[in-house]
Amino acid sequence: MNFLAAAIAAGLAAFAASYGNGKVISKTIESMARQPELSAQLRSTMFIGVGLIEAVPILSIVVSFLILFS
Amino acid sequence: MNFLAAAIAAGLAAFAASYGNGKVISKTIESMARQPELSAQLRSTMFIGVGLIEAVPILSIVVSFLILFS
Amino acid sequence: MNFLAAAIAAGLAAFAASYGNGKVISKTIESMARQPELSAQLRSTMFIGVGLIEAVPILSIVVSFLILFS
Amino acid sequence: MNFLAAAIAAGLAAFAASYGNGKVISKTIESMARQPELSAQLRSTMFIGVGLIEAVPILSIVVSFLILFS
Amino acid sequence: MNFLAAAIAAGLAAFAASYGNGKVISKTIESMARQPELSAQLRSTMFIGVGLIEAVPILSIVVSFLILFS
Amino acid sequence: MNFLAAAIAAGLAAFAASYGNGKVISKTIESMARQPELSAQLRSTMFIGVGLIEAVPILSIVVSFLILFS
Amino acid sequence: MNFLAAAIAAGLAAFAASYGNGKVISKTIESMARQPELSAQLRSTMFIGVGLIEAVPILSIVVSFLILFS
Amino acid sequence: MNFLAAAIAAGLAAFAASYGNGKVISKTIESMARQPELSAQLRSTMFIGVGLIEAVPILSIVVSFLILFS
Amino acid sequence: MNFLAAAIAAGLAAFAASYGNGKVISKTIESMARQPELSAQLRSTMFIGVGLIEAVPILSIVVSFLILFS
Amino acid sequence: MNFLAAAIAAGLAAFAASYGNGKVISKTIESMARQPELSAQLRSTMFIGVGLIEAVPILSIVVSFLILFS
Amino acid sequence: MNFLAAAIAAGLAAFAASYGNGKVISKTIESMARQPELSAQLRSTMFIGVGLIEAVPILSIVVSFLILFS
Amino acid sequence: MNFLAAAIAAGLAAFAASYGNGKVISKTIESMARQPELSAQLRSTMFIGVGLIEAVPILSIVVSFLILFS
Amino acid sequence: MNFLAAAIAAGLAAFAASYGNGKVISKTIESMARQPELSAQLRSTMFIGVGLIEAVPILSIVVSFLILFS
Amino acid sequence: MNFLAAAIAAGLAAFAASYGNGKVISKTIESMARQPELSAQLRSTMFIGVGLIEAVPILSIVVSFLILFS
Repeated sequence: MNFLAAAIAAGLAAFAASYGNGKVISKTIESMARQPELSAQLRSTMFIGVGLIEAVPILSIVVSFLILFS
Repeated sequence: MNFLAAAIAAGLAAFAASYGNGKVISKTIESMARQPELSAQLRSTMFIGVGLIEAVPILSIVVSFLILFS
Repeated sequence: MNFLAAAIAAGLAAFAASYGNGKVISKTIESMARQPELSAQLRSTMFIGVGLIEAVPILSIVVSFLILFS
Repeated sequence: MNFLAAAIAAGLAAFAASYGNGKVISKTIESMARQPELSAQLRSTMFIGVGLIEAVPILSIVVSFLILFS
Repeated sequence: MNFLAAAIAAGLAAFAASYGNGKVISKTIESMARQPELSAQLRSTMFIGVGLIEAVPILSIVVSFLILFS
Repeated sequence: MNFLAAAIAAGLAAFAASYGNGKVISKTIESMARQPELSAQLRSTMFIGVGLIEAVPILSIVVSFLILFS
Repeated sequence: MNFLAAAIAAGLAAFAASYGNGKVISKTIESMARQPELSAQLRSTMFIGVGLIEAVPILSIVVSFLILFS
Repeated sequence: MNFLAAAIAAGLAAFAASYGNGKVISKTIESMARQPELSAQLRSTMFIGVGLIEAVPILSIVVSFLILFS
Repeated sequence: MNFLAAAIAAGLAAFAASYGNGKVISKTIESMARQPELSAQLRSTMFIGVGLIEAVPILSIVVSFLILFS
Repeated sequence: MNFLAAAIAAGLAAFAASYGNGKVISKTIESMARQPELSAQLRSTMFIGVGLIEAVPILSIVVSFLILFS
Repeated sequence: MNFLAAAIAAGLAAFAASYGNGKVISKTIESMARQPELSAQLRSTMFIGVGLIEAVPILSIVVSFLILFS
Repeated sequence: MNFLAAAIAAGLAAFAASYGNGKVISKTIESMARQPELSAQLRSTMFIGVGLIEAVPILSIVVSFLILFS
Repeated sequence: MNFLAAAIAAGLAAFAASYGNGKVISKTIESMARQPELSAQLRSTMFIGVGLIEAVPILSIVVSFLILFS
Repeated sequence: MNFLAAAIAAGLAAFAASYGNGKVISKTIESMARQPELSAQLRSTMFIGVGLIEAVPILSIVVSFLILFS
């Protein structure tokens, strides 16, 4: 039961991060293609957004490692 | 059962935060590309929104740590 | 079973709050980009809405803590 | 089984309230941005609607507390 | 099993009422913003509709209380 | 098992009635806003429709009470 | 197991009837608002349709009662 | 297990018939409102269609009764 | 287990036939309303299609009866 | 377990065949109504398509009979 | 458990082949009706596509027979 | 448990290959009908794509055979 | 349990790779048909994309083989 | 239980990476075909995005290997 819990926490974190990042990055690329002169600003917003999105999944990965090595 | 509960709380929190943040940030980038002169205002609203969204998932992560170390 | 119940209550509360907040805040940002002169009014309605949405999930978090420390 | 039932009732109530409120408030913000001169009337209808929506979830939270302290 | 049944009945009732009410009230607000001169008539139809929708969920809450106190 | 059956019957009936009623009433309000001169006719059709929709869920509530008091 | 079967049959019948009726009646109201001069004909077709839709769910309710009293 | 099987067969038959009939009848009403001069022909096709759709669910109801009385 | 298998086979067959028939017949009625001069040809194609669709569900009903009487 | 396997194989085959056939035949009728002069060619392609679609479900029905009589 | 595995493999193969074939063939018929002069080329591509799609489901049917006769 | 694992691996591989191939081939046919002069190039890209898609499902079929004969 | 784990890992990897590849390749073919002069560039991007997509599913297949031969 | 956990972690990681990558790369190809002069910039953003997306799934694969070899 120990390993199963670590796997669920890690798997859900991976799915969550991919879902959010995929949405943000694909929308960034779409907007960049529509207005190329804003690409620097959009890309910096994308980096902030990816950082904000990955905060909680990384915490979930931390929970997974804590379960794994406890 | 102890570890499984911590994994579920952390995993759902990760999915919830990524879902909400992905929606808000991708909409921000889209709006920013449509009206570049509003980008400062939109980005500040985005930061407030991300903070409001991550409040309850962080509480869920806290529940996860409380379960893990109890 | 004790910890599992707390995890389910906290996780569902996190998902619920992120779902509702994500919908409201992303719609606010979209409307703000369309009519910038209304941004103060829209943002105040957003704060009221976020407060109203987070009422019941916070109650669910309270239930989670009550389960955890009982 | 006692705690699990309370968690399910509270979690479903949280999800239900967030779903309904998120729909109503986001539609209110959208309509307010389209017709700013009606914002007082729309906001009062929104408050009535949020009150009507939260009636049954609050009853479900009450059921959850009754289960928790029985 | 007793408490679980009460929780399921109350939770489903909460979700049902929020789903139906959210649909009706958000459509009312949308229609009110499109034709402001009909707002009194639309709001009264909304009250009738909310009452009709909440009839069966309230019966389900009654079933939940009957299970809880039996 | 007795109470669980009553809860499932009541909860499904609540969801069914809210789903059907929400669809009919929201469509009525939309149509009423589009053609205000037909509102009396549309509202009377709505009452007939709500009655027809709630017939079977009320039967399901009856089944729930029969299970509860048997 | 006896009561659970009756509850499932009754609940599914309620959901089925509400789904079908909600679809037919909401479409009738929409069509009636678009062409008011056909409202008598549409309403009579609606009554036939509701009768045809409710035939099998009523049979399922009959099965539920047969299970309940056997 | 005997009653559960009858309930599943009857409930699925009810849902199947309502789904198919609801689709056909709502489409008939929509087409009738668009071309009122074809209403006799469309209604007769609807009756044939409803008969063809209800053939297999009625067989499933028969299976349900066979299970119930065996 | 014997009756449950027969119920599943019959119920899935009923749902399958209703799904396919509902799609074909509603599309036929829609096309008939758009081009009334082709209604004979469309209706004959519909009969062939309904026959082809119901072939495998009828076989599944046969499997259900074989299970029931074995 | 023997009968359950036969029922699952037959039921899935029925659903698969109805899904594929319903899609192909409804699309055929729609295309036939749009271009009546191609109806012979479209109908022959439909027959080939139905034959190709029903190949694997018929094999699944064969598996079902093999399970039933083994 | 032996027969159940064969049924799952055969049923999933049937659903997979019907899903893919239904998509390809319905799209072929739609394109054929839009550009009748390309019908020979489209039909030959359809045959290649159906062959490529049915390769893996046939392998799954083979696995089903291997399980059945082992 | 041995056979069940082989069936799941083979069934999921069949569904995966049919899903991906169905999407690619139907899009190829649609594009071919829109621009007939590119049909050779599109068809060769389709063959490469089908080969790339079927790589991993074939590996899953290999896993299925390894499970079956181990 | 050993073989079941290998089957799940391989099956999910197959579905994941087919889903991602199907999306990328069908979009490539659509874009190629819209702008034939870019086909070399698009196809090379497609090969890079397919390689990037298949990286993690191949790792999952490796996990599957490691489970199978451990 | 050990192997099952590794399989779930690896399988969810594979699905997550394919979902996110498929979304980003297909949107890149679509944008590249619309504005060919931006292809270098879009492709570099795509590489950054794919790297950011695959970060958490690779961590999940690491968790899977840690479970496998512990």
